[in-house]
Amino acid sequence: MLTMAQTVNDLHRITTSQLDTPPRLLLGPGPSNAHPRVLQAMSNRQVGHLDPAFIALMNEVQELLRYAWQTDNKLTIPVSGTGSAAMEAAVANSVEPGDTIVIGVNGYFGERLCDMAGRYGGNVVRLEKAWGDVFTIDELRSAVSQHRPAVLALVHAETSTGARQPLEGVSDLCREFDCLLLVDTVTSLGGVPLFVDAWGIDIAYSGSQKALSCPPGIAPLTFGPRAVDKLNNRASGVPNWYLDLTMVSKYWGSERTYHHTAPINMNYGLREALRLVAEEGLEARWARHRNSAEMLWDGLADIGLTCHVPLETRLPTLTTVRIPEGVDGKAVARTLLTDYNIEIAAGLGQLGGKVWRVGLMGFNSRPENVITLLGALERVLNG
Amino acid sequence: MLTMAQTVNDLHRITTSQLDTPPRLLLGPGPSNAHPRVLQAMSNRQVGHLDPAFIALMNEVQELLRYAWQTDNKLTIPVSGTGSAAMEAAVANSVEPGDTIVIGVNGYFGERLCDMAGRYGGNVVRLEKAWGDVFTIDELRSAVSQHRPAVLALVHAETSTGARQPLEGVSDLCREFDCLLLVDTVTSLGGVPLFVDAWGIDIAYSGSQKALSCPPGIAPLTFGPRAVDKLNNRASGVPNWYLDLTMVSKYWGSERTYHHTAPINMNYGLREALRLVAEEGLEARWARHRNSAEMLWDGLADIGLTCHVPLETRLPTLTTVRIPEGVDGKAVARTLLTDYNIEIAAGLGQLGGKVWRVGLMGFNSRPENVITLLGALERVLNG
Repeated sequence: MLTMAQTVNDLHRITTSQLDTPPRLLLGPGPSNAHPRVLQAMSNRQVGHLDPAFIALMNEVQELLRYAWQTDNKLTIPVSGTGSAAMEAAVANSVEPGDTIVIGVNGYFGERLCDMAGRYGGNVVRLEKAWGDVFTIDELRSAVSQHRPAVLALVHAETSTGARQPLEGVSDLCREFDCLLLVDTVTSLGGVPLFVDAWGIDIAYSGSQKALSCPPGIAPLTFGPRAVDKLNNRASGVPNWYLDLTMVSKYWGSERTYHHTAPINMNYGLREALRLVAEEGLEARWARHRNSAEMLWDGLADIGLTCHVPLETRLPTLTTVRIPEGVDGKAVARTLLTDYNIEIAAGLGQLGGKVWRVGLMGFNSRPENVITLLGALERVLNG
Repeated sequence: MLTMAQTVNDLHRITTSQLDTPPRLLLGPGPSNAHPRVLQAMSNRQVGHLDPAFIALMNEVQELLRYAWQTDNKLTIPVSGTGSAAMEAAVANSVEPGDTIVIGVNGYFGERLCDMAGRYGGNVVRLEKAWGDVFTIDELRSAVSQHRPAVLALVHAETSTGARQPLEGVSDLCREFDCLLLVDTVTSLGGVPLFVDAWGIDIAYSGSQKALSCPPGIAPLTFGPRAVDKLNNRASGVPNWYLDLTMVSKYWGSERTYHHTAPINMNYGLREALRLVAEEGLEARWARHRNSAEMLWDGLADIGLTCHVPLETRLPTLTTVRIPEGVDGKAVARTLLTDYNIEIAAGLGQLGGKVWRVGLMGFNSRPENVITLLGALERVLNG
């Protein structure tokens, strides 16, 4: 009794084999390899998105996110998408049409913030620096005092450049001029010292697939009290339905009001990734990332390669390595992938053709991986 | 050498045990239980989102989606979010400020379409019917000829009511009045006869966690040539960054331009779910859903329960069952969950307190599950 029966067309009914992905070591800007315990957790049988068992899990995920971010923010949740969705949630909910937003643009993700803020009607002020440089507190003060923005947006860890933006004093500045501090922590959360409350960050977002070693598809977001106040006092509604925190927060809050179906198994994975963070402890985890990175930097120097970012603002999670004169950077990356199953990435934008990007994040931040990469890189460069 | 060192606060560093979810049989409106092969596929080791191995997988996912939807549409992709994200992608990319959109509202998801379309500046015309009813072609003709919309949006399978909207003749109507036909197929794709091309559907979206039996977190979307034309000729940009198909399509098209990091493991899962569809074949799969549903409907009648939706428009994937006079519907659902690990759902909106919603979708659409539910329901009602 099929209604409107047509003949089924088998044109696209392709035959495929069981999935068997190559054993890549993912040392690019992300995703990094997921921890085996995370993959295992993701394959747990499903429960409904309003099941008491899932609600208990939601509370655990939120608590563990607060630990990872060092915040008491009630509105601390995983967004049901990848890091870019959390970035857009941060912007869509904090920027109203006509709001001025000063954005630090010293890499690809600062650019992306400008694109998003413009779509939400923000009056975007671009504060520009060469890719790899960071902003001084004086530069930020000058911009904020001149433009009096509603939001100052900075990228704590620029995945495109490997630079760490110091945040000392920025919160005081934002309070002095009554603006919100919005920070991209995609490549810092779980790998680099980060204290959301102590540093006075009002809004932060991240990804799961970097230093948390969970696959992409779920993305942490936190809104502090000042940001929630602004959200609750918007003159206009949030133009984005899926990411509207006035509704999403009712599902993740005590009301548990249905908004959209949470990605159940991604939440299983994120819970396990955050358990691993809590078991290891943030201090030990940060030190591990630092140690692996220093081992990498020393090893790169030994084979005559130099880092693009000065030591004092260099991220341990993501290193940009200058491609030597006369070397075809893309060919080297391709050979690493095809001959050694190692993924590193090419530069973007201003750094296109000039650097490789090497990530040592989460589960992957281990000495054996550094040795493997250095050995392979040396062979390819000298090969 | 930790910069800006604070003392790490262990307040939120909770201790949790290894995840061990209860063995639920998910017979609500979704998520349904994922097929074991899908969960296994999701735990495959990761590759990068621009890895040749992943690009091959993307092509396979797209081809298999075309088979499941019976379409040749080039722009057929999985959105990196849950079904609601795909719904918003459908609306955000097809509705421009000032566009009239006629929306069939005969359930919860028609309401949601109205909410979304309003956010994107659409001039929303609500075509209303009681929840559980469907629209006749004459009613649709009357609305379209009166309002001359840019888009007509209908819900093929209303998850909140269990009604199947017949689509006979709707495409001809939309072509006569030069409007796009946008169809919600969240609860029909993979479970109910559906021919996107033969039926002239211009835009369709779905979820992964219903009749495809993949966990939520990735959501199919297809745009046909007329919809792509409208997209390419927009007067204004797409206001949503994450779901902007002018950019997303360049990642899923031959350019492979980076937009956002795809949810790698969710794509593994979707691929396996779609392989299962291709292996079984659509005709066999639709017949299986029909057979399980008829078994359920007969069994419900045997224990004196009636269905809310008339047989001719009743969905095989989702059945709304009237709660008998004097029975506490919520208490029954709670007992099914706590005593028998079976999830069914309460009614929403106009059907709140009046019906249970029972899903038989994908992997779960099997006679043994029907027997289990009927047996448990009978015991709880008579207990």
